[in-house]
Amino acid sequence: MTLAYGVLAGGGVCARVDGRAIDCRALGDEVFDRPSLNAFMASGPEVWARTAARLRAGEGQPLEAAELGMPFEVADYVDFYSSLHHATNLGRMFRPDAEPLLPNWLHLPVGYHGRAGTVVASGTPVRRPCGQRKPPSEESPRFGASVRLDIELEAGFVVGMPSAIGEPVPVERALEHVFGMVLVNDWSARDVQAWEYQPLGPFLGKSFATSVSRWVVPLAELESRVVRSEPQKPEPLGYLREEPWAYDIPLEVELNGTVVARTNTRHLYWSVSQQVAHLTANGASLRTGDLLATGTISGPEREERGSLIELSWNGSEPIELADGSTRTFLEDGDEVVLRGEPLGEVRGRIEPAVAG
Amino acid sequence: MTLAYGVLAGGGVCARVDGRAIDCRALGDEVFDRPSLNAFMASGPEVWARTAARLRAGEGQPLEAAELGMPFEVADYVDFYSSLHHATNLGRMFRPDAEPLLPNWLHLPVGYHGRAGTVVASGTPVRRPCGQRKPPSEESPRFGASVRLDIELEAGFVVGMPSAIGEPVPVERALEHVFGMVLVNDWSARDVQAWEYQPLGPFLGKSFATSVSRWVVPLAELESRVVRSEPQKPEPLGYLREEPWAYDIPLEVELNGTVVARTNTRHLYWSVSQQVAHLTANGASLRTGDLLATGTISGPEREERGSLIELSWNGSEPIELADGSTRTFLEDGDEVVLRGEPLGEVRGRIEPAVAG
Repeated sequence: MTLAYGVLAGGGVCARVDGRAIDCRALGDEVFDRPSLNAFMASGPEVWARTAARLRAGEGQPLEAAELGMPFEVADYVDFYSSLHHATNLGRMFRPDAEPLLPNWLHLPVGYHGRAGTVVASGTPVRRPCGQRKPPSEESPRFGASVRLDIELEAGFVVGMPSAIGEPVPVERALEHVFGMVLVNDWSARDVQAWEYQPLGPFLGKSFATSVSRWVVPLAELESRVVRSEPQKPEPLGYLREEPWAYDIPLEVELNGTVVARTNTRHLYWSVSQQVAHLTANGASLRTGDLLATGTISGPEREERGSLIELSWNGSEPIELADGSTRTFLEDGDEVVLRGEPLGEVRGRIEPAVAG
Repeated sequence: MTLAYGVLAGGGVCARVDGRAIDCRALGDEVFDRPSLNAFMASGPEVWARTAARLRAGEGQPLEAAELGMPFEVADYVDFYSSLHHATNLGRMFRPDAEPLLPNWLHLPVGYHGRAGTVVASGTPVRRPCGQRKPPSEESPRFGASVRLDIELEAGFVVGMPSAIGEPVPVERALEHVFGMVLVNDWSARDVQAWEYQPLGPFLGKSFATSVSRWVVPLAELESRVVRSEPQKPEPLGYLREEPWAYDIPLEVELNGTVVARTNTRHLYWSVSQQVAHLTANGASLRTGDLLATGTISGPEREERGSLIELSWNGSEPIELADGSTRTFLEDGDEVVLRGEPLGEVRGRIEPAVAG
């Protein structure tokens, strides 16, 4: 059964082995006596493998219960845009008279930096953000609570081994730097985003909160999930070239108890190794704790879309929930749970905006 | 004379008082016995004021010489776009048939997140980045060294006191959170940026290096530099409203010994208090070490432009240097020094790209 690592709410690394929580501090290495996974993640693939073997052999101290905190300290947070179906859907909605994909999309994994300081652990309540937005019918922008609050179902890769500034990481060595995988909900205020994002990209529409799952699953545990993908056309430039592959991990989006979408990480066009090679191609360094998220994961079918803006087609086709209500975007009190074994879940409930 | 703080190359906070370097560890507070200014910056305005008074009274241990390192650990790096002349110049170059300013620019301080992990101290060599670019005459992108490597003359504000997630910082209280100011060179590969930046903004065109000065000048030392600005039109929304103001700090760009531009922070349209209020309006928190840069500072005249793309008008009007050579963008071996008293300088020399 899949091994995963977390951090106890009071500090200290723990593991999930065969469904049981194990206190890793009993292994005797001081990298486990920390408030985050970062020191362990920085210790490299050999230590990761040796630790997994020891835990599987029954070492470590079983825990009665494990209340988990934020698993790692985020260094830089990069959000990619690596699902072809998601990028195509947004292009169709926002530029109906043009080619849905922009010219660069098939040549490089488009991405941008998000706010590392507001990445929070699963279960942290999410306050509805305020911001500037300009309804199309109005002349000037107004300030107030977002009325188009959305989710984004993503996977995230956490960097373990750093790389040096000025030294690109080749695509074939990229995975040596990646410790593990989490689930990510990249909460998005679509109305704030639409008004602010030209020409420098998303900022306050995304920066109020990004939720991650509390268990981190090492990539070594996911090798059986690797599948071949379709060849990329056009063939990528040399620094991005590899045998096309993806992880086969089924994912679902639950909103107030109703599963509103089911999709799979195999729908991603760009792999994490391509993302690492691209991110470092200009000499940018990796740091332990860098979070590389995939961007919204959508499949080809309607029910495989990983955001409400896609599921409701920009608000025009409300989604029906089991209690008989409908949603286009999120209402106060709504709870969203993203799930995908063996990653676990990432959960968040919407709190009302700050008064005034 | 203006006080400033730095960090000794081997660790430990030092100060510059009346032109002399002082070891702050002799003050006896453990916040000075650290590898960065962050613990001191987090201690808040009262400690900052008391420390300045003690140093001015002659406390602390004089240093023979002070070799400085990186002054602070960067939490999140945000780059704004707050110079009206810079935004107008870029609009004129890239969208010659449209209004140079996009509709949101006069309503909010446009900004985006940059890469915190590649912010380096003044003097660190900058390797020419490689990346994807698509020359207009070619059908497909190619990979290679940037041929349009540029500088951006900016000021940067460093956050001292953090704020809580979900709690916007009002514009009138914003400066309580800001410790001090640095000079910033936001190196930019214009060809990489032009191909990658749609629709999510700049990424690899900026993320290879951002240089900051090694002394941080507390805002309290800059009060005599505060000047009234012209009223902003249209009047900003309530959460951004204040008496318009700016710092009056003359700045210059020196390239291989020739001063190629002189400008001033008073040309900025949006203030740092408006930037903080905007950044936190959606509930995003501030962390100690957040770096908020202004974006390129350009004035109304040609010689007041803070980037080579503006000074050479997109490469069409080469700049003459004192040695008789000309430049549109940077060549290998070029050295750029940005200066502005009392901030000091930020310096960097271009090294050739990685072979191949």
